[in-house]
Amino acid sequence: MQRRLYLDTAPIPEALQRLRETLDRDALLPPETVPTDRALGRVLARAVFARYSSPTFHSAAMDGIAVRAADTFTAREGAPLRLEPDAGFVSVNTGNPLPGGRDAVIMAEHVVMGADGSASIESPAFPWQHVRRIGEDIVATELLLPQGRRLAAYDLAALLSAGIWEVEVAGSPRMAVIPTGDEVLDYTARPVPGPGQVVESNSVMLVSMARAEGFHAERRPPVPDNPDALEAAAKAALDEGFHVVILGAGSSAGTKDYTRSVMERLGAVLVHGVAAMPGKPSLLGVADSGALLAGAPGYPVSAAVCMEKLILPLCAWLERRAAAERPRVPVRLARRVPSKPGMEEYVRLAVGRVGDDYVGLPLGRGAGMITTLTRAQAVAALPLASEGAEAGQILDAELYVPREELDATLVVVGSHDNTIDLLADALMGLPRPVRLASSHVGSMGGITAVASGQALCAGTHLFDPDSGDFNVPFLKKHAPDQDLVLINLAVRHQGLIVAKGNPKGIAGVADLARPDLRFANRQRGAGTRILLDWHLKTAGIAPGKVRGYDKEEFTHMAVAVNVLTGTADCGLGIFAAAKALDLGFVPLARERYDLLLPRAALDDPRVRALLGVIADPAFQERVRGLGGYETGLTGREMQPGMGLGE
Amino acid sequence: MQRRLYLDTAPIPEALQRLRETLDRDALLPPETVPTDRALGRVLARAVFARYSSPTFHSAAMDGIAVRAADTFTAREGAPLRLEPDAGFVSVNTGNPLPGGRDAVIMAEHVVMGADGSASIESPAFPWQHVRRIGEDIVATELLLPQGRRLAAYDLAALLSAGIWEVEVAGSPRMAVIPTGDEVLDYTARPVPGPGQVVESNSVMLVSMARAEGFHAERRPPVPDNPDALEAAAKAALDEGFHVVILGAGSSAGTKDYTRSVMERLGAVLVHGVAAMPGKPSLLGVADSGALLAGAPGYPVSAAVCMEKLILPLCAWLERRAAAERPRVPVRLARRVPSKPGMEEYVRLAVGRVGDDYVGLPLGRGAGMITTLTRAQAVAALPLASEGAEAGQILDAELYVPREELDATLVVVGSHDNTIDLLADALMGLPRPVRLASSHVGSMGGITAVASGQALCAGTHLFDPDSGDFNVPFLKKHAPDQDLVLINLAVRHQGLIVAKGNPKGIAGVADLARPDLRFANRQRGAGTRILLDWHLKTAGIAPGKVRGYDKEEFTHMAVAVNVLTGTADCGLGIFAAAKALDLGFVPLARERYDLLLPRAALDDPRVRALLGVIADPAFQERVRGLGGYETGLTGREMQPGMGLGE
Repeated sequence: MQRRLYLDTAPIPEALQRLRETLDRDALLPPETVPTDRALGRVLARAVFARYSSPTFHSAAMDGIAVRAADTFTAREGAPLRLEPDAGFVSVNTGNPLPGGRDAVIMAEHVVMGADGSASIESPAFPWQHVRRIGEDIVATELLLPQGRRLAAYDLAALLSAGIWEVEVAGSPRMAVIPTGDEVLDYTARPVPGPGQVVESNSVMLVSMARAEGFHAERRPPVPDNPDALEAAAKAALDEGFHVVILGAGSSAGTKDYTRSVMERLGAVLVHGVAAMPGKPSLLGVADSGALLAGAPGYPVSAAVCMEKLILPLCAWLERRAAAERPRVPVRLARRVPSKPGMEEYVRLAVGRVGDDYVGLPLGRGAGMITTLTRAQAVAALPLASEGAEAGQILDAELYVPREELDATLVVVGSHDNTIDLLADALMGLPRPVRLASSHVGSMGGITAVASGQALCAGTHLFDPDSGDFNVPFLKKHAPDQDLVLINLAVRHQGLIVAKGNPKGIAGVADLARPDLRFANRQRGAGTRILLDWHLKTAGIAPGKVRGYDKEEFTHMAVAVNVLTGTADCGLGIFAAAKALDLGFVPLARERYDLLLPRAALDDPRVRALLGVIADPAFQERVRGLGGYETGLTGREMQPGMGLGE
Repeated sequence: MQRRLYLDTAPIPEALQRLRETLDRDALLPPETVPTDRALGRVLARAVFARYSSPTFHSAAMDGIAVRAADTFTAREGAPLRLEPDAGFVSVNTGNPLPGGRDAVIMAEHVVMGADGSASIESPAFPWQHVRRIGEDIVATELLLPQGRRLAAYDLAALLSAGIWEVEVAGSPRMAVIPTGDEVLDYTARPVPGPGQVVESNSVMLVSMARAEGFHAERRPPVPDNPDALEAAAKAALDEGFHVVILGAGSSAGTKDYTRSVMERLGAVLVHGVAAMPGKPSLLGVADSGALLAGAPGYPVSAAVCMEKLILPLCAWLERRAAAERPRVPVRLARRVPSKPGMEEYVRLAVGRVGDDYVGLPLGRGAGMITTLTRAQAVAALPLASEGAEAGQILDAELYVPREELDATLVVVGSHDNTIDLLADALMGLPRPVRLASSHVGSMGGITAVASGQALCAGTHLFDPDSGDFNVPFLKKHAPDQDLVLINLAVRHQGLIVAKGNPKGIAGVADLARPDLRFANRQRGAGTRILLDWHLKTAGIAPGKVRGYDKEEFTHMAVAVNVLTGTADCGLGIFAAAKALDLGFVPLARERYDLLLPRAALDDPRVRALLGVIADPAFQERVRGLGGYETGLTGREMQPGMGLGE
């Protein structure tokens, strides 16, 4: 094989074009003959012409009597015509061949059978009425299906009806996925990851993505970071006749380099990186055997992009089928997202319907965040030349979920709380499930999103030190003149999350100034942060005195993980987070966690479902079961000055 | 089981509701535990909470050096800070755990390594830069996925990353399809159907429809019309644990009655017919074992509707997944279609883009016509109360093909010709395939459709006896002032199709008046019909003298089949049709078969592709290979008065 220069960090269309020019698909995947009943989803390699006609005979299309139409012309209402069996008529059921010489069927409902076996009719039959004529559906020798047709269920029936027992179809690429890396653990061994180790799961994602499109794909066991071992594994897959061999990088950079050199040993690398984020470190090449070689990046989101935008379109092209495309919808972007010119960037979105629009909240953009894929309902591409997309801009987003599911999705923004997870689960258990997508932007972010029409529902727990009230004063200030409703979800306990057994003897806010303590804080705008600031102020402690005050986490759980791993000695958070990780908890305050909604949204079926779940005693019991929650106000509309309701 | 009254000819939603009320899905399909890597497409029976965090450790997000951010604050451009190995920095690759005490990573590109092993930087690092923090993606104990989630490829990777090796999922219904009927032939025996026999193919369609949705489905061998045999076959499937047993009616009415009585022996029939056309004779019931019983009608289109509208939605409900829905597009109806009030009617459509609209031409509505399913790009439902839909009305049509494929579909209306089939096949062989959908409405119908903007392309071969020209005079009359183009596809030979060896010695038109001859005619408006009428007139024969003049067929092939089977002794048609069925042919005339297009359509990429194929000598050779075609004018724009170009 001629060694070609790399395409370096190529735009995806150029990368695909380079591979299409180089791969010899006729040699790699010659047509094959398969039995028709096993050909679902396969692509016809050549036109199919019918061998049999269908029907192969004139047949009755109704139950009734077969007649010669000309014999019946004198029948009139009130002047019935009497027909004798055999000579005048023959009884037929639907599907029966038409007896010789008959050219019409009269429905049984329009015939009066006499006791003597005769039949009487009161209207004439016209020729060929209720008769399925020979070749009506399929005429032998005519074109049944053209080449390039991807065979659907209906097509298989038509082929069999026409006497086509087997079909010549394009070969379908078989794919092997080989995970690599010294640090990856084979999930089949059910491992417990230690420091520096990760459970290998990209291979299952890649194999499943291929299977979801109807391709054959197999996962191989992980191979350590050793070029010889890697080459041997890839060569074994090529020798077994796989048409596409994917080397999945581990999480270490060393692996990536081996992938390239191993690909060069086996053939040629044609594309070295693509102009896409995530997905940039993708590699594409061709083995000397003619097979497609690919190196998938180690981060899961990058690997998914590599599969979806490069490998699967090439597999579709190899099989001569149209590349699968997701349905698209226009999505209004809730927040600005920046983008690097020269890179196509994929932004995953939590999408829900707000009024007549679909509104998309950008999810985290880290390529290592698999949950941005599981949480997203859609993904939008920001083109190469783009410097980003503005809030309010309409993006043409590809859907990860059926559009019907999108209409049943409610996006909850604002502050995160574990009860939101319980709510999400309970809503999915309804006869008409409601999908709850959440985007954690803090309480103030939530108020802004609801007030600006970007979301229908936000979780908020903002404490106003001046009035001693929750949320209402902030609405007056940031969303005046809007008809918004606050429904209490729970009253929860905030406190200091500390290590198990509280080894540092932390008793309260006053201790936060201790020089031996490292604190884990929440992000600006979070209700918990506001609560902390009030407690610090009350205690007369300047934020600068708190070590770790600048270390921001975005969820209670993340704060708790800092304490669990010793990165911090304490952090302000909810009891549920401490309990979930089996940590200590020093109660500080109770606070109201409310859901904020436009009043007009109370009629929305998704919101009605949500309020129904909140009002359900079984749900409230589950909330209390988390620990650190009270449900005395749960489901009630909150009024100004209610505070904690006492 | 309590025997309930039938719902007789029920609207589909009521039929589904009756079954949902009666089936005990918890008992029929209890949740089951499956390995995560085998759970693609399965529905979670309960919420899954993470066991492991991801990452489980702080790790480098870039290749470079790990540092303590606080150590770097003095670094400035032009005033590099020198860091010593170990004490000041540790080299890391992406994915490596962050060495103890380090809280930031500086990218390799921003570090100058000294020969002595030291590292120099010119800007400070901020805390946690380029660090993937523990739990950044997944926090142990938090909700990973809610109940009811249908697992996608991404979800499987998230589950494995979080240490979830197996998942509890809703049971998935397994389906058995049992074809029945004395007249059906098992296709696995590769039968040759005799009179009254049909190759059984519905079962493969039904099984494949279920598989395309991800359900397990198996076909059983056909069972003759014998209630005991039928009951035994169904009982065997129930005993083997199938959750859904479908009895597929043969083409005879007797079978249907057995289906009902067999269903009653095994349990109860709940729905006896639905208010839908096709699909009316569908039966639904529940076996004493709790399984879903269904009786699918014998006609293929009815069986497909039964599967798609009744059985598959119930299977989706049994598995607690959202019922699959096809994408929908608005389609402008090209012709009026009547509908019977009280019945929901499904109209299959050949759909192509014309300008900014999708235009749908109704295909044949016979429930026995499997090719209306293979030819259709979409189906539209006319509601229960409807009396039909008018030409020009916008219907909300469900797509059988991807929307992208629709944009690549060109609808050709008008007169049928076998070269159109060759054209359809050749267009699918292009690198960017164009799908040709055809609707046979005769030459006049084609001119009307193009002139009224319902189609971009029509095949027409209308002979004008007064001028001796083809097509042009008809355009002047029926589409004046429109800028239309005629491109010749071929000059073809029309003649009398007669039995092999011409046993009746038919020599020409004059013989058509012979009382011993039966003729097969084409439909009114067809170019062939006009040609016949001119020949009859020239020969001085009144149409009433021709036996069979009133017997109308819609294609050349159908005329030829009449001759093949002895239903007629001759008919006017093209040589290709006679040759395809190995019949005799008495030449009468040559005629021009042109494609009619709006001139503006010549820029359409589909039309350009079509003209490219027509101009290709290989295509023209294939046309001549059919016999009875000349290609001297092929691909040329026809002008008034050109006639046959001689």
